[in-house]
Amino acid sequence: MTQAFDRAQAVQGVAKAARQAARIVAKSTAAQRTEALRAIAAAIADQRADILAANARDLAAAASLAPAMRDRLTLDERRITALARAVAEVADQPELLGRVDHHETRPNGLDVSRVRIPLGVVLMIYEARPNVTTDAAALCLKAGNACILRGGREALESNRALLRAVQQGLTRAGLPAEAVQLVPMTDREAIAELVKLDDLIDLCIPRGGEGLIRYVAEHARVPVIKHYKGVCHVFVHAEADLDVAERIVENAKVQRPGVCNALETLLIDRAIAPAFVPRLVARLGNRVELRGDETVQRLGGPSIKPASEEDWYAEYLDLILAVRVVDGLAGAVAHIERYGSNHTESIVTRNTQVAEQFVRDVDSSTVMVNASTRFADGGELGLGAEIGISTTRLHAYGPMGAEGLTTTKFVVRGSGQVRS
Amino acid sequence: MTQAFDRAQAVQGVAKAARQAARIVAKSTAAQRTEALRAIAAAIADQRADILAANARDLAAAASLAPAMRDRLTLDERRITALARAVAEVADQPELLGRVDHHETRPNGLDVSRVRIPLGVVLMIYEARPNVTTDAAALCLKAGNACILRGGREALESNRALLRAVQQGLTRAGLPAEAVQLVPMTDREAIAELVKLDDLIDLCIPRGGEGLIRYVAEHARVPVIKHYKGVCHVFVHAEADLDVAERIVENAKVQRPGVCNALETLLIDRAIAPAFVPRLVARLGNRVELRGDETVQRLGGPSIKPASEEDWYAEYLDLILAVRVVDGLAGAVAHIERYGSNHTESIVTRNTQVAEQFVRDVDSSTVMVNASTRFADGGELGLGAEIGISTTRLHAYGPMGAEGLTTTKFVVRGSGQVRS
Repeated sequence: MTQAFDRAQAVQGVAKAARQAARIVAKSTAAQRTEALRAIAAAIADQRADILAANARDLAAAASLAPAMRDRLTLDERRITALARAVAEVADQPELLGRVDHHETRPNGLDVSRVRIPLGVVLMIYEARPNVTTDAAALCLKAGNACILRGGREALESNRALLRAVQQGLTRAGLPAEAVQLVPMTDREAIAELVKLDDLIDLCIPRGGEGLIRYVAEHARVPVIKHYKGVCHVFVHAEADLDVAERIVENAKVQRPGVCNALETLLIDRAIAPAFVPRLVARLGNRVELRGDETVQRLGGPSIKPASEEDWYAEYLDLILAVRVVDGLAGAVAHIERYGSNHTESIVTRNTQVAEQFVRDVDSSTVMVNASTRFADGGELGLGAEIGISTTRLHAYGPMGAEGLTTTKFVVRGSGQVRS
Repeated sequence: MTQAFDRAQAVQGVAKAARQAARIVAKSTAAQRTEALRAIAAAIADQRADILAANARDLAAAASLAPAMRDRLTLDERRITALARAVAEVADQPELLGRVDHHETRPNGLDVSRVRIPLGVVLMIYEARPNVTTDAAALCLKAGNACILRGGREALESNRALLRAVQQGLTRAGLPAEAVQLVPMTDREAIAELVKLDDLIDLCIPRGGEGLIRYVAEHARVPVIKHYKGVCHVFVHAEADLDVAERIVENAKVQRPGVCNALETLLIDRAIAPAFVPRLVARLGNRVELRGDETVQRLGGPSIKPASEEDWYAEYLDLILAVRVVDGLAGAVAHIERYGSNHTESIVTRNTQVAEQFVRDVDSSTVMVNASTRFADGGELGLGAEIGISTTRLHAYGPMGAEGLTTTKFVVRGSGQVRS
């Protein structure tokens, strides 16, 4: 009871300090925020020895971590340089705050505009990935927000060292250190407490496994921007250039299979299945486990494993690919509507009309024509760095950058108008 | 138990039908949606006798309703004409869907655009106001959404009659009747069931008293756009034109005191308080109960009642006004930051620099200069009809029209690009 009470108190203290800091950051100038971002980049580079030492302690304590997670936790000289550079790049992005998104003069002479302003306080909840610490801090600050970081337990020492650099940069630019805070409690109950504070926190972005995200969504009173998973599809249409199709399928599946925009289910138009399935097996069969429906198995031979109903829902994040033959565009759209996750789907075709129909009919946050699903990323799509990806449709849908961390207010300038 | 089970089943059935209808509406053409809106307007006008009869039954059953609520429930020939006209006006608003909000070509040749699409299924929860039924249906349809309407118990017969007209219009245009549905269960438990269905409903907009809205917010898993209350401020600055100030204060307080953009607290700069308080008493004293701090009481005489701490938080929705003397711009901003509701605040001043500082420093969804707070309304600010007002900052902040019922997706057109 006392412990629970202390936790709630501590968490509230962090959120209240963030709210106060957010007010100050919102009133800061663009020059001040840019200066802070540059100072943060410099401090990260300066303090690389401390950061590496902290990271080594984390890695020593997390000996039993799975290799992929261990890799994400690990920092080295090169990665620290990349973290600092990413912050400096955010500093160089165009300024968002104060931008007038719409302007009109009403018939009664009222001058109405919509002006970009910060969201306020942003809560990031993530796993043991130290790069999210500095990326999120930089993007939130760029957009004039304060942020509360709650990273994974295994990265606590690394995050603390990174936070020292971030707060040093803030202080150098005359901004409050509380504009970026780290929640030291790494139990899930602390998350449940945080996401209830809808009077102090304006947005929560959870990033990580589906379990973590569902936990946040279930306990949240604060608005949440999230995606549970990325079951991305490529549809090879009857009129596809099969060389292009091969290249896109390979890239989307193999280049980095552990990320959310990697290909998980390949849909092949029945008309070209006899031509394409053997090419697929030849290109990927030795590297990727292929799980196909009956037609695919028949055309691809014994190396194809049978796909079950669960395979169509699966986000493997691994070198496994579900493959299904569908009847034309309508069959592909129906499959995606039923099994998809609203993340990213791509059609390969030379028929522009079919491509445009696919773009209209597929409801996902990113819809592509003749391109690898791996481009579904804030940086690749021109948003600058990415704070997260949303597959729910409110506020942001798809990759979200600094602009997604802002909103607009109405500004109305009159000369004494009253309503009749 | 069985009853709870039946309720959950019934509510799910409505939401599933809405989701299916939403897919069809999303794929309809602008011409089809416009035709449906025109047909709905015509059907409302045609069926006015049925609608009036249904409304008479509601009014007879709701004999104990407070006069203001009774007035909002009441329909007559003139009001029905206005309902139909409002729907026709939504039909004439510019088309939103398919609009390209951003377009760029990336260095690798990828053509990236952001295209406006519907949100999906919108749930409106409101009290006994039949006009919301047709307004919400029209705006949701304009934006390509399906909607679920859950109006107040006292208006059930009126809403049913209006819904018949709406569904007739939909059917005439070849759109599914389930694109607009009315939830027949008027108990609060049905609301709690509905707002949990985050896989079937994309957005919930509750409109009504603070109690209803808090109930929705507490039970919701679906994203909610809301405002609890409108504690709107006018700040009369030292350099105000006092004639303009008088006119704006009177209009903001008296013209329609029961609405959320009416004035609730008047802040007067200390420098002009001796000049302005007596004018205020002369102008409003006989119609409005004035509750002031000590200075206001001293300057305004015995007709001023003392204001308590609670008065600064109060949304009276009545002919009562809290009045406080503050020290300049900083005092006004500090008061608004502490007691405000992020709805609408207006400054009266001839000093442009001070006005612009107020615009920057006040964090509310609508900030005004030399204009009545009563203009904080979607129609007045150029959005067309208004579906609601948001004082939380995600997705929409301030008055929200049809565009707020849409989102954007990324469309990426390539020529075989893969990521390296």
